[in-house]
Amino acid sequence: MSHQIKQAACVGAGVIGAAWAARLAWNGIDVKVLDPHPEAEARMADVLANAERAQAKLTMAPVSKRGQITVVREVKAAVEDAEFIQESAPEREDLKIKLFAEIDQYARPDVLICSSTSGLLPSKLQSAMKRPERMMVGHPFNPVYLMPLVEVVGGAKTAPANISRAMEFYRSIGMHPLHVRKEIDAFIADRLMEALWREALWLVNDGVATAEEIDDAMRFGPGLRWSFMGTFLIYRIAGGVEGMRHFMGQFGPSLKWPWTKLMDVPELTPELLDTICAQSDDQARGVSIRDLERKRDDCLVTLFQALKTQDYGAGKTLADYEKRLYAQAHAGTVAAAHDFSKPLRLYEATVAPDWTDYNKHMNESRYLQVFSNATDALLQLIGVDEAYTKRGLSFYTAETHIMHKKEVAALEPIHVETQVLGHDGKRLHVFATIRHSRTGDVLATGEQMLLHVDQAAGKVAPAEPQVIAKLAEIAKGQAGLPRPKDAGRAIGFGKPGAV
Amino acid sequence: MSHQIKQAACVGAGVIGAAWAARLAWNGIDVKVLDPHPEAEARMADVLANAERAQAKLTMAPVSKRGQITVVREVKAAVEDAEFIQESAPEREDLKIKLFAEIDQYARPDVLICSSTSGLLPSKLQSAMKRPERMMVGHPFNPVYLMPLVEVVGGAKTAPANISRAMEFYRSIGMHPLHVRKEIDAFIADRLMEALWREALWLVNDGVATAEEIDDAMRFGPGLRWSFMGTFLIYRIAGGVEGMRHFMGQFGPSLKWPWTKLMDVPELTPELLDTICAQSDDQARGVSIRDLERKRDDCLVTLFQALKTQDYGAGKTLADYEKRLYAQAHAGTVAAAHDFSKPLRLYEATVAPDWTDYNKHMNESRYLQVFSNATDALLQLIGVDEAYTKRGLSFYTAETHIMHKKEVAALEPIHVETQVLGHDGKRLHVFATIRHSRTGDVLATGEQMLLHVDQAAGKVAPAEPQVIAKLAEIAKGQAGLPRPKDAGRAIGFGKPGAV
Repeated sequence: MSHQIKQAACVGAGVIGAAWAARLAWNGIDVKVLDPHPEAEARMADVLANAERAQAKLTMAPVSKRGQITVVREVKAAVEDAEFIQESAPEREDLKIKLFAEIDQYARPDVLICSSTSGLLPSKLQSAMKRPERMMVGHPFNPVYLMPLVEVVGGAKTAPANISRAMEFYRSIGMHPLHVRKEIDAFIADRLMEALWREALWLVNDGVATAEEIDDAMRFGPGLRWSFMGTFLIYRIAGGVEGMRHFMGQFGPSLKWPWTKLMDVPELTPELLDTICAQSDDQARGVSIRDLERKRDDCLVTLFQALKTQDYGAGKTLADYEKRLYAQAHAGTVAAAHDFSKPLRLYEATVAPDWTDYNKHMNESRYLQVFSNATDALLQLIGVDEAYTKRGLSFYTAETHIMHKKEVAALEPIHVETQVLGHDGKRLHVFATIRHSRTGDVLATGEQMLLHVDQAAGKVAPAEPQVIAKLAEIAKGQAGLPRPKDAGRAIGFGKPGAV
Repeated sequence: MSHQIKQAACVGAGVIGAAWAARLAWNGIDVKVLDPHPEAEARMADVLANAERAQAKLTMAPVSKRGQITVVREVKAAVEDAEFIQESAPEREDLKIKLFAEIDQYARPDVLICSSTSGLLPSKLQSAMKRPERMMVGHPFNPVYLMPLVEVVGGAKTAPANISRAMEFYRSIGMHPLHVRKEIDAFIADRLMEALWREALWLVNDGVATAEEIDDAMRFGPGLRWSFMGTFLIYRIAGGVEGMRHFMGQFGPSLKWPWTKLMDVPELTPELLDTICAQSDDQARGVSIRDLERKRDDCLVTLFQALKTQDYGAGKTLADYEKRLYAQAHAGTVAAAHDFSKPLRLYEATVAPDWTDYNKHMNESRYLQVFSNATDALLQLIGVDEAYTKRGLSFYTAETHIMHKKEVAALEPIHVETQVLGHDGKRLHVFATIRHSRTGDVLATGEQMLLHVDQAAGKVAPAEPQVIAKLAEIAKGQAGLPRPKDAGRAIGFGKPGAV
């Protein structure tokens, strides 16, 4: 269906409507946006700018040519040519009922009409429509241009085939549609949000914790796990190899305890218990607790590393921790007695699973990262540390030549041996070898030419004397080492220049 | 404090106790673990194996030499030499009160004793101790070897200085300690978890949704946002530029609606409203809504990309979406009319913010990633596609030579131009240029030698005839192009081999 759709309508251009327009346009669909507000264009501009910025980062995959977004003032103009219609007007039932009747009147008969409402019932919203079978809720989450979830809820008169069509369309524009099978106020996600919110308000009301402390309790704790597994699967794992029934046995009684102020709890009957355990089994699809634990751990690690790039939340905790570890190690590197008559062994690592590609070997770009980290350690050793770079001076990589010798898999231990081949105050020529630390096998060699740069002047300039002196000390010590046979090698078919 | 600690005790070796031992040992601390269970070692082995696996992935920073973990059977043996004690026995108040009295008796007088209890009150747990001032709750989250949060809760007799010491220690082992200032059943995080859990049980009980659907509603929706911002900050953003008071005005009334089954809600008095808005202002620390939106978006994008490496949750949604985009683009590349008399322009990208390093320029390893993606596109074009690699045949990169010419910042548009310099059936010699797409400036050149490999035979072997034919067609077309001046260049100080 998505391939045919070239024209859509967004009814309402608030934060939600504008973000829908951005998502649709990004998928190559032209969008007419209805908003009677005189400043609709200006208000939308902020959301569209945010969306464009986020979309540029989201994927390196080649996306479609962006669709056009046009603001119109009349329902008819917005919807008459549309092949898909998304309504995001204010949350007033009476207003929406009238609006859907009007959209229904002008829209082509087979076009889907979905509402962004976060809690109103589609049966009511479709009540004044002549063709209610194509109307349903498609409830998105802020920011709509990024968040995957869209809850699809049909009303009494919605045709099941149209639910399927909407699910397929939402999937085609990069979303995760969830069919809410039973029509209920606030659907599923907002009910969970509301329950948690009510408890959070009690915690503030009772002076137990501040807004910030409550948010911290989530984002450094359970919120991390909820972001990829939800609550039932995490509790299944907590039950250990004995699984969900064991967990319910352990924590079932706390339902009667004042562990929240929200005491309207369901009775944990044998029937409800059976239902929960059976659904938990279905959800796990035979995956063992051990494998679920590992998936949980892998997701957590990758989340921490991701948030580290933002220096935020759990990523900041990891970054702060690593800063302490690196400071200790750099102090150790500088303080350690190095034998300069041998290649320097300044960097060790374990191949992270995330560094491997589809054939399970370390991806080629990670080799350069490893060489780069080893060169950083060498720079620390010669005094090109934080204080030095703060003076606006540093070495920049000008050239790199990598030769791949042997593959390496995730979790294997590796280290780098570095030889200084030359330096002249402005240039530093190094040759590094990545070895498997257990077998000693050479995995790759990397030759680099670095230039010493004065950033303020914007040009190559001599390093400070103490750095040159340290380099001279290392080069003198390593002078007796044989020149690596691959050093100075050019890429080609034998004779340089020949093809 | 962390630097002094060399020996700790873990009282209890269940999932929580064993994971504490793993975290402590990973930080270079020797740990005595008390567990009377005859299979304590075996049960711990599973947790320790998981922890070791996760820790190997967590950081590339150089960690301490791992501490020793020893199981002992008596409280005295576990705690008498310990400099820090963490209790993780079963959740029975009477048992814990006796246990703390016993630990207190054998532990050195100034040593901190922390309980992992998820809900029992420290004032009660410390009631039979002679030195209760050093006892408190340090409530961790599963898996303890990874999760940052630890809730620190003092009892009536806990000394404030000891709370600070515990916070500092937990921070030193990579955690995020949160001081729970008011002693309350289930503290903060578990109250939020319990409220959400009670609503989830209602949804199952009422047949609205299954365990899996509820988890999906979280992990594709609000759970993602909770993982880095929590609930108050996300709602502040939802309030738009008018902020928290606007949000509360919009959504305050829904507290009276049946949006959850949990109707014991606090009264939203003007005083409570003022408190919430003031706390929300404090939390935001003057950061604008626009900047918060961007931080939210950046965190979401990086989470999706992180989870994509696990092909899980929101990351799988993104992966599926990208698969469709790439399939479309590959089909387009193959179907498009290429002018083989020019360098091939097969790959375009926007520099992602996550590709840049501390000086805001694209990191060197990302250049290789870009070259690698461009070469992948070339391989698609010559018929080395999924079907081809499924036959066990592929090109592997043997060598790469990169020359950096000009820096490029985040969000700048770039593309790659590729020239085939030679091929002989088994080898493929390409020269690629990364250009800024707006200015046309050359940012870097990359020369690569690829080898065609038969994976089953484990050796270099000729490509299939149609691939060779396609390469010949391209090479013939490009034969008139000048040879790039940097092709075949060796790294060195002028004369090859000279230093």
